[in-house]
Amino acid sequence: MSLSLSDSRYGRSGVRLLKLNRRGDRHEVRDLTVDVAFEGDFGASLREGDNRAILPTDSIQNAVLALARDHAAGEIEEFALELARHFLEQVETLSRARVRVTEQAWQRIESHGRPHDHAFARGGTDRRIAHVEQSRNERASLIEAGIEGLALMKTRHAGFAGYLRDRYTTLAETEERILAAELNAHWRYGWAEIPYAVHYRQVRQVLLDTFAAHDSRSVQHTLYAMARAALEQVPPVVEVRLRLPSQPPKPVDLRPFGMENTGEVFVPSEEPHGVMEAVVRRDDLA
Amino acid sequence: MSLSLSDSRYGRSGVRLLKLNRRGDRHEVRDLTVDVAFEGDFGASLREGDNRAILPTDSIQNAVLALARDHAAGEIEEFALELARHFLEQVETLSRARVRVTEQAWQRIESHGRPHDHAFARGGTDRRIAHVEQSRNERASLIEAGIEGLALMKTRHAGFAGYLRDRYTTLAETEERILAAELNAHWRYGWAEIPYAVHYRQVRQVLLDTFAAHDSRSVQHTLYAMARAALEQVPPVVEVRLRLPSQPPKPVDLRPFGMENTGEVFVPSEEPHGVMEAVVRRDDLA
Amino acid sequence: MSLSLSDSRYGRSGVRLLKLNRRGDRHEVRDLTVDVAFEGDFGASLREGDNRAILPTDSIQNAVLALARDHAAGEIEEFALELARHFLEQVETLSRARVRVTEQAWQRIESHGRPHDHAFARGGTDRRIAHVEQSRNERASLIEAGIEGLALMKTRHAGFAGYLRDRYTTLAETEERILAAELNAHWRYGWAEIPYAVHYRQVRQVLLDTFAAHDSRSVQHTLYAMARAALEQVPPVVEVRLRLPSQPPKPVDLRPFGMENTGEVFVPSEEPHGVMEAVVRRDDLA
Amino acid sequence: MSLSLSDSRYGRSGVRLLKLNRRGDRHEVRDLTVDVAFEGDFGASLREGDNRAILPTDSIQNAVLALARDHAAGEIEEFALELARHFLEQVETLSRARVRVTEQAWQRIESHGRPHDHAFARGGTDRRIAHVEQSRNERASLIEAGIEGLALMKTRHAGFAGYLRDRYTTLAETEERILAAELNAHWRYGWAEIPYAVHYRQVRQVLLDTFAAHDSRSVQHTLYAMARAALEQVPPVVEVRLRLPSQPPKPVDLRPFGMENTGEVFVPSEEPHGVMEAVVRRDDLA
Repeated sequence: MSLSLSDSRYGRSGVRLLKLNRRGDRHEVRDLTVDVAFEGDFGASLREGDNRAILPTDSIQNAVLALARDHAAGEIEEFALELARHFLEQVETLSRARVRVTEQAWQRIESHGRPHDHAFARGGTDRRIAHVEQSRNERASLIEAGIEGLALMKTRHAGFAGYLRDRYTTLAETEERILAAELNAHWRYGWAEIPYAVHYRQVRQVLLDTFAAHDSRSVQHTLYAMARAALEQVPPVVEVRLRLPSQPPKPVDLRPFGMENTGEVFVPSEEPHGVMEAVVRRDDLA
Repeated sequence: MSLSLSDSRYGRSGVRLLKLNRRGDRHEVRDLTVDVAFEGDFGASLREGDNRAILPTDSIQNAVLALARDHAAGEIEEFALELARHFLEQVETLSRARVRVTEQAWQRIESHGRPHDHAFARGGTDRRIAHVEQSRNERASLIEAGIEGLALMKTRHAGFAGYLRDRYTTLAETEERILAAELNAHWRYGWAEIPYAVHYRQVRQVLLDTFAAHDSRSVQHTLYAMARAALEQVPPVVEVRLRLPSQPPKPVDLRPFGMENTGEVFVPSEEPHGVMEAVVRRDDLA
Repeated sequence: MSLSLSDSRYGRSGVRLLKLNRRGDRHEVRDLTVDVAFEGDFGASLREGDNRAILPTDSIQNAVLALARDHAAGEIEEFALELARHFLEQVETLSRARVRVTEQAWQRIESHGRPHDHAFARGGTDRRIAHVEQSRNERASLIEAGIEGLALMKTRHAGFAGYLRDRYTTLAETEERILAAELNAHWRYGWAEIPYAVHYRQVRQVLLDTFAAHDSRSVQHTLYAMARAALEQVPPVVEVRLRLPSQPPKPVDLRPFGMENTGEVFVPSEEPHGVMEAVVRRDDLA
Repeated sequence: MSLSLSDSRYGRSGVRLLKLNRRGDRHEVRDLTVDVAFEGDFGASLREGDNRAILPTDSIQNAVLALARDHAAGEIEEFALELARHFLEQVETLSRARVRVTEQAWQRIESHGRPHDHAFARGGTDRRIAHVEQSRNERASLIEAGIEGLALMKTRHAGFAGYLRDRYTTLAETEERILAAELNAHWRYGWAEIPYAVHYRQVRQVLLDTFAAHDSRSVQHTLYAMARAALEQVPPVVEVRLRLPSQPPKPVDLRPFGMENTGEVFVPSEEPHGVMEAVVRRDDLA
């Protein structure tokens, strides 16, 4: 039987590291998780167990930790780029390196009215993402930034009506419901060497502003408005991918208890949930 | 064979609810999870399947949701008390009701420089707890407040030395390490009808201030200082129970790569971890 | 302010280890997680940061791993006893050691009709537990065994009727529902040096047999029958503690779609859930 | 700014259901989780909030539960196909429907030497998957089966040597290590209307047999051997995609305690881990 091989890749996931920067008494911490994946011709390894083209994943982890010393203090996008280039240079058998860096924020403890120099509490549930892909044969890198895991909710200006109905449709149309969704956004930058942290904060803020202000006719409708706003207001962004798992909290029926529920008590739920996703990009740059 | 029965209890856990308060255009949301446990004489139910003393846990959930309409907007301690008293009144067979209310914070989205009226993002990873126990035969209730799941870290003024050594001790003494622990604190109030939210914020702040400022010789040492400060600075608090799972991030050994690591790159870890706990109380009130 | 201290304890949790026993070509593996907690007079450590009575939790972990070499191949109860005695002997400041060993089963892969010598797949979701407490001043140890996390379901001979009703009761009485619960059982042995693995399998089997055969009038009713059967049928067992989080799968209402649901389609759910627990013991030995 | 839209899809995830089949006194249960995703022209919904092409995800869930009554008792692949065709027929705006059905096994409790008629315990940690994609314009469906989440381990005949080394390589070559990986396999069938359950068991068995018997020079090496065996031994399979997150348990260094560790005590670990994946297909059918 003749067999062909595709999409073979390998790497190391979940490399955790904490980078401490001491600027005199004022410390800074970065809490990072790094995933590295290699693509290339690994046929001999797979077919014959010939490992000569395989750098151990243990070495990948060591490189991440070693390079973190000098490169993890800056932008996570630059650290990801540094890692991707390092691996392409060191490992001749690679055709492509993918590096994803996830940052979990820590905030300075506010103590006696000011941010503490060296004491921190973990920030919110959301994570900042940098994702880089670098091919040996292409000069340009793919550079994406993202935000994952931020639960959002708006309690006005969100309706859902005028939809398609089939025999299994029992949902009531509404002009006012609670829209609750988890924000997962990734966006691609059109060029490199930009102030990534500045743009990350801009995109995050535009997404939140639009979510809050939008007069929502559906989750999809708000999703598109958010993606569009990011593209229009943050010039280096050329493509936005949004994924919004969502489940509207259900009003509790209190009538069996002789009570009315005028939109006060809801049951929130995580499962099952709707999932909406789309990619929006600028035509001129696609 | 003669058998005796003890510690029989039952209840409903994980009742989720969202309470929306509309004050004109300005909305407030409370995201609560309620656990209810009943103690009493349930022997006939257990031994013979005679359910006459058993209120279904489904009814417990219904009561939590129904009472939430009028009682979930205020302090979670008061909602817990209301629920405990309700169940003791309704269910004659109960000798004791325990109610725990967990609040997950949502923060207003900051938009165009000010907190939005009706759009919210989930707050941090920590949860505020109210725990109430009410017995039929005691007038006073046990009222506890708590905070769970807040990851803390300090990068200076934390050492660990002078400890007991046995043949399995390889740990190096240090005057400076990173102290990373998860804060789980519960405290008992000496009397009721106090401004719970105010005291919650006070205790939380005192715990964080002390953690940040303490010259730590061990996790235990800092734990005690935190509990003591809460007792000394917040009068209604008569007892503090602290539990601090902790694992110091390990410095990465970069010498195999010809590099030095001068306290810059660490590997954080969650498992395995140390666990320290203690209860500290005011003698005069015990 | 005069403060008193109680319930201070510390230890190491989540120590993971894999013990491989080679009996020629036939290998055996044990996948264990060990939690150790120390009680004693740690006041000086807490109050003054004097660590002389504190064995580092890192040393506790090292001892667990080192003692595993010679003691982790046998019964987990014996390994737990060995660890508890070791720590009391080594650390003079301890008054009591608690050791919990959790075993995650691996099963031999069935290959070509027979169990393989050295290839394994993880077994079910349930975990076997050994819990030991040893005090310096008591000769006898507390020895408990347990099973946690085993999801059970029975689709006949389970009803729930005749219960207490209040104004929030909407649940319909039923003579036939699906009883779904997670089994968490712990039992105490009246004496040591017994064949623990044999008794573990006996108790597990009795609990499952009783669950399957019982004509259940409530979760509590079945819980008691299970505990009673274990006490009656396995002589060294003197006390059983059972905890059964449960949530009956709800029949789906298909009438809005012009269909009948004659007990065929249900929605299972984990949250919210009922929790029932009780301790049953033999009178003559209490 | 001119924007283009791609990859827009929406659906419902995590629809849980339990299907009970009564064959007289002998009951059968299937515990399923269904994810449905729709692709089509949803531009008007996204851009203008015009929902006329949008079937609510609530209706999707209702359809899954309603169709489960008559179709969830058989093969999960057929249930997935039925759902995909149903949605394409009902919703004109769809170009493509994707349905994934995940089955969590329950096993009959063995009681008094035989499998019980109506009492069950949850099976292993692995899940059986059926994944179907049906386009409006293509007659053929994509039908995939899979297994996810099965932890495997082999303690002999697994080495890793002869690999590429860089300056960060410290890993020692070994002819004998423990290979521990989680099996995640998905395979595509070349034609429909086959006995899916039979082939599922065949592929599962071939994967396990090969894992157990293989003389492994690397995780990749074993991965390929497993995929190849499935393709060679189960004719309807035309493509296999394997993903094996893995982390070899590390031998504990007992020398600091004056002890030797001759391959007996290991520390298993989940994070960080290597990830290997590849797709292997039959050339003649690609």
